[in-house]
Amino acid sequence: MNNEVIYLDHAAATPMDERVVRVMQSYFSDNFYNPSSPYAPAVSVRRDYEEAKHKLASLIGGRPGEIVITAGATESINLAVNSCDGHIVTSNIEHPAVLESVKLHDHTLVSADERGFVSAEVIRDAIRPDTQLVTVALANNELGTIQPLREISQLVRQEREARLSRGDNAPIYLHCDASQGAGQIDINVARLGVDMLTLNSGKMYGPKQVGLLWAASFVKLTPQIVGGGQERNIRSGTENVAGVIGFAKAFELASEHRQYEVKRLEELRNNLQKTLTDAFPDAIVSGHQKHRLGGHLHMSFPELDGERLIFALENRGVLVSTGSACAANKGTRSHVLTAIGLSPEMADGSIRMTLGHLSSADNIKRAGEIMIEEIKKEYGRISR
Amino acid sequence: MNNEVIYLDHAAATPMDERVVRVMQSYFSDNFYNPSSPYAPAVSVRRDYEEAKHKLASLIGGRPGEIVITAGATESINLAVNSCDGHIVTSNIEHPAVLESVKLHDHTLVSADERGFVSAEVIRDAIRPDTQLVTVALANNELGTIQPLREISQLVRQEREARLSRGDNAPIYLHCDASQGAGQIDINVARLGVDMLTLNSGKMYGPKQVGLLWAASFVKLTPQIVGGGQERNIRSGTENVAGVIGFAKAFELASEHRQYEVKRLEELRNNLQKTLTDAFPDAIVSGHQKHRLGGHLHMSFPELDGERLIFALENRGVLVSTGSACAANKGTRSHVLTAIGLSPEMADGSIRMTLGHLSSADNIKRAGEIMIEEIKKEYGRISR
Repeated sequence: MNNEVIYLDHAAATPMDERVVRVMQSYFSDNFYNPSSPYAPAVSVRRDYEEAKHKLASLIGGRPGEIVITAGATESINLAVNSCDGHIVTSNIEHPAVLESVKLHDHTLVSADERGFVSAEVIRDAIRPDTQLVTVALANNELGTIQPLREISQLVRQEREARLSRGDNAPIYLHCDASQGAGQIDINVARLGVDMLTLNSGKMYGPKQVGLLWAASFVKLTPQIVGGGQERNIRSGTENVAGVIGFAKAFELASEHRQYEVKRLEELRNNLQKTLTDAFPDAIVSGHQKHRLGGHLHMSFPELDGERLIFALENRGVLVSTGSACAANKGTRSHVLTAIGLSPEMADGSIRMTLGHLSSADNIKRAGEIMIEEIKKEYGRISR
Repeated sequence: MNNEVIYLDHAAATPMDERVVRVMQSYFSDNFYNPSSPYAPAVSVRRDYEEAKHKLASLIGGRPGEIVITAGATESINLAVNSCDGHIVTSNIEHPAVLESVKLHDHTLVSADERGFVSAEVIRDAIRPDTQLVTVALANNELGTIQPLREISQLVRQEREARLSRGDNAPIYLHCDASQGAGQIDINVARLGVDMLTLNSGKMYGPKQVGLLWAASFVKLTPQIVGGGQERNIRSGTENVAGVIGFAKAFELASEHRQYEVKRLEELRNNLQKTLTDAFPDAIVSGHQKHRLGGHLHMSFPELDGERLIFALENRGVLVSTGSACAANKGTRSHVLTAIGLSPEMADGSIRMTLGHLSSADNIKRAGEIMIEEIKKEYGRISR
């Protein structure tokens, strides 16, 4: 990567860790065998593949037989949602993969508060006797707000028990998309109390278009892609051996360095936040100020044009985003910012900065300086 | 790859071409940006991605806007089949991805003949007024038999015209899974006369879990994976930039070398076939002897146990298969061999040899020698 570039968009994409690339290489042209083939070299590839799934499972405290490898978080979410044939509860600040997939089902969108926080209370109020799925992201991709999954999980369990006690066997499951947050938050399915979990390799310095859906053994998944019967008949297609081995390595590295990395990012982020809020006291920092991903910083500068600012910053080598890459591409206003009640003017003056492996004390300090200069220039241009 | 290994299972998996691996590398850790991000380095990644799709489109004579990138042939086939809400006609020797996905729809399975040939006549007889989709693989993955796609396409067109002439606007489409055969057969959508086409990168020396569905602009596809709206809203999920660039390179290389490579493989395969049929006059060669992929050789040795033979050959470094890797993994008898009327005894004594890039005059000659020795040993064991 160009040394002059300061990348502040780790929530949109992460560079593959060199160690991840390295473990994948041998599976490209040497150990390329189809893991379903019968001869020893293929059986050995199958073993490596299953070992990677074991590793992924043990990193979330699940069993390998509960993991379905997919082509990324979007597919995992669609699989979780489409396995449901009852009512679904989710929030109005979820990723489009959730918001679009629940449209095909009877569903209720609960409102996040102005910090992008989805309280267990609003979820509880939306649960109906026919609710079969509650799906909430671990952390919001735009604001970084971390959701109270354990509390939500408790009330889902209460609802389940209440149903059982009145002889109602209708299931209710909690799915969590942990694409944002894995590597910064402890992702243990038992501690989170979830029944289904989505992870995305491409957001944690692993290969893109690789992900998983973990589902507790009592959850019945409905296959969305059928064929050769791979992934326990739930998701067919010749396995992406290199990709899954890379994914497992990436998640392993993320887990090993998690505590150190979170602290490091938080410190850098807090410095950047202080620099910018000191320079621009009118600016608003969105997202939960306590329960927030260490690397996330979402700020709105009144009257500024966020898109102009992005390009001005880019000219100085600082890469930030107006919101999620998906929304950015469509040129529409972020549904998250609308949902948390940010005025259109504030929303339009917003940028999202997400720190990660490519962030250092030096380049974050430099980014702060450049941003102050450029934001001042933009304000100067407006007042002229 | 171990030099002592003679790989004869190119239909199950292909090693990535070194040139493919090379073009992908920079997209792992350097040009890792999310193609939907707004800043220049990401826009440049978007451009490379679109260029790869252009290349793929032009190699099949289609338009880039008609291509949907998927996670492989199985997903492409599911997308094509599930976009259909009418009756489907397909054959009884199709890949499980077709046979399993059509189960969710009203469908008719026509019978292939004893050569694994699906004649246009049997398709025509199965088409009903409410038939919306005909799907036939370009070449059968077990036998190598090449299907008469142009003739099938003509009758689909006739049916379409007949409907229109009686004022019936019900569409009828022809989908072709060209996973087997791309790189050996000219894949031009206009010349084939298909309305939808599936391609699989992993079968043509490209990365695994990458594929495409081409659909003519008048075909209405129903999104199966929704979310951020990638791939023209038909297939969401952050793009696998490296994978698609590798896919395009692999297909380009395959197309460039196609005529030379087909001739080379045919000659090697014919030599091997002659060697083995000369040594074992009772053996049966299955598949169409004229319309057959250059690299495919399917043989049945009466009374032998194909699985035992595979392991005996493997001990000598020769890797062959009893059938498709998917079926092999389940230990069930091949549905293709049953469909073409091979007796269970013959089916059980079958092996599939598929030649490809790793095949050379030397190693095929050597494979023939080893196979004669091992097959004789097996026959000796039986007669003892």
